[in-house]
Amino acid sequence: MKTDFPALIIDTGKVESNIERMLSKASKSKAVLRPHFKTHQSARTGEIFRKKGVEKITVSSVQMAEYFAKYGWNDITIAFPLNLLEIEKTDNLAGKIKLNILLDSPFVASEIAKNTKNNIGVFIEIDTGYHRTGLLPGQENEIEKITDIISNTKNLNFKGFLTHAGHTYNANGKEKIIEILNDAKQKMTALKNKWQQRFPDIIVSYGDTPSCSIADNCNGFDEIRPGNFVYYDVMQYHLGSCNLSDIAVSVAAPVTGIYKNRSEIAVYGGAVHLSKEFIAGDNNFSIFGYIVKYNGNFCWNEPLNGAWVKSISQEHGIVHMPANELGKIKQGDVIGILPVHSCLTANLLNKKFFIPSNEPNISPGRHQTTRKNLIK
Amino acid sequence: MKTDFPALIIDTGKVESNIERMLSKASKSKAVLRPHFKTHQSARTGEIFRKKGVEKITVSSVQMAEYFAKYGWNDITIAFPLNLLEIEKTDNLAGKIKLNILLDSPFVASEIAKNTKNNIGVFIEIDTGYHRTGLLPGQENEIEKITDIISNTKNLNFKGFLTHAGHTYNANGKEKIIEILNDAKQKMTALKNKWQQRFPDIIVSYGDTPSCSIADNCNGFDEIRPGNFVYYDVMQYHLGSCNLSDIAVSVAAPVTGIYKNRSEIAVYGGAVHLSKEFIAGDNNFSIFGYIVKYNGNFCWNEPLNGAWVKSISQEHGIVHMPANELGKIKQGDVIGILPVHSCLTANLLNKKFFIPSNEPNISPGRHQTTRKNLIK
Repeated sequence: MKTDFPALIIDTGKVESNIERMLSKASKSKAVLRPHFKTHQSARTGEIFRKKGVEKITVSSVQMAEYFAKYGWNDITIAFPLNLLEIEKTDNLAGKIKLNILLDSPFVASEIAKNTKNNIGVFIEIDTGYHRTGLLPGQENEIEKITDIISNTKNLNFKGFLTHAGHTYNANGKEKIIEILNDAKQKMTALKNKWQQRFPDIIVSYGDTPSCSIADNCNGFDEIRPGNFVYYDVMQYHLGSCNLSDIAVSVAAPVTGIYKNRSEIAVYGGAVHLSKEFIAGDNNFSIFGYIVKYNGNFCWNEPLNGAWVKSISQEHGIVHMPANELGKIKQGDVIGILPVHSCLTANLLNKKFFIPSNEPNISPGRHQTTRKNLIK
Repeated sequence: MKTDFPALIIDTGKVESNIERMLSKASKSKAVLRPHFKTHQSARTGEIFRKKGVEKITVSSVQMAEYFAKYGWNDITIAFPLNLLEIEKTDNLAGKIKLNILLDSPFVASEIAKNTKNNIGVFIEIDTGYHRTGLLPGQENEIEKITDIISNTKNLNFKGFLTHAGHTYNANGKEKIIEILNDAKQKMTALKNKWQQRFPDIIVSYGDTPSCSIADNCNGFDEIRPGNFVYYDVMQYHLGSCNLSDIAVSVAAPVTGIYKNRSEIAVYGGAVHLSKEFIAGDNNFSIFGYIVKYNGNFCWNEPLNGAWVKSISQEHGIVHMPANELGKIKQGDVIGILPVHSCLTANLLNKKFFIPSNEPNISPGRHQTTRKNLIK
């Protein structure tokens, strides 16, 4: 196998282990794993989840929900507050599958209530500290207004409360991440206890890979929605969510230049392949990815010590290489880059995609055809 | 016209003015404008250049060259050091159009010399201080080896020296940018003077939007290759390359949440639409875009004072809004975002694309069909 331009390489063995580990944590915590499929956006990777018994999924847009519905996923939560301009599309999809949406506004709730013809499950999104979207736990008036609208609308079913504790990504250390999880648990449990008197079947749903990876268990949540854990990445490694050996994705990048005087190489692989996500160090030191060497079938071991992507522009990546490795590399070789943020990298490259082993059988789709086109 | 999810909006009037201004500077400098099409990657925007008389273009990948060749562009420079794995594709394309490539390595030069069946123009890339790719002006041995290989290969024609002074993007102020341009001019002119004794027809080619925009003229270069100037963006505004009113691109983003307590709104428009490029200020203050209001046909005026995209995740953008504007906005409205880096934004969105006015007529292509699909 070879590729002549930047391609996403997935190690399905690692994907399976990552899924098994999270499933086992969910099971031990008596929570349902409803993984977030925004990370991979791939029907093929979805099949690996299906084989492990996953039936419910999370996505972040109506388009993504439509894509996975085509591949037979019929229980989907769109974890993005309902976009009023997409009510019709959302409602149409709800006519085909079990669909849950997010609301954090009585105004939007009243609009969907007026316009839905199909059954839709509704989560109220709660902001437990990330301050992106959602109602604060104390905004009881708004919560009550939304639940009233749901109660009075035949097609809307109140599913419970949902939060994404994305502030774990900015947390300084594992202890802080666990603190965020416990704080969210306390807030969400209080809401559940209060509202289940009126709605006995409601659940609380919790997201984010760092806390679901680092915590011993997710007790107290009925459902967890991590996504990134399927591939992990350099950022998750730095947060303490995974080992380097758990990272299941790399970008194959052709080497196009050798610059011995500055101990660097240039690769075909830049911001339009990896994204501009980086890890910032002191003194303007940045990491845009770690470097791995491929053997045979695009398999890799640990990253090369002392090698990292130090800068990227649109199509170029500049890689610092240790002196002892520099002499072994030439133009025309292909090296691997472990990305800093696998969700964004997969979004950029998942049409240029293949899996080295254990390919699950899925019905024809874009990933199926691209392999044939891209890999000679 | 409306859009229900993030779409790239191009103001073709501004595009025309931006092109005219750069053409006039090139003409005054007696340089050919060979614009870099990596910024827009759009056949439709390409047609605006063609109408203004542009015939030669620059791209950053073989794929991009193939794409524009399909739209009738037949004089293309691939401004990325030749990827040895794409020799065959490159050579095939050179059989169809006038194609120039970049070399900065005698090893790669000898490989292409052995493998080309068609005429290919060759620029030697020079590193005038950016330290991304290219030979240093003082690496005379390597330059000589490459020119010897070109001389001895019937199908290779030496076109001259090319540099991209990308370090202007890190320059502190306009004076520093002009200093970089003058330094590059001195280095490139010295090379030309030396080598034109042996190769009388060689030229020197110079790139980058900041210096080509800020300098009064580009005298001393035979060719200039800026790209970003066609759209400009918030980063170029901060560098001093343009006025805010020159920015010809915005992203239409549906408003999905209003958070009065923190003077913020949430929009459907995140890292997979805008890219993660940002402008960093002190105290962790970041700008991921400025905000404009649309009137009628997605036209806009100056950005809203005191409004900016303060953070983004995969699909969400969080916008700080001044208090007086907050009350006027509701879910379901669409606001515009001026992107920080238009090249990366266009790369993410140019399949979700339309132009509000002055559409040039081009043969059917992806941009033609997407308009029909996306805009109701």
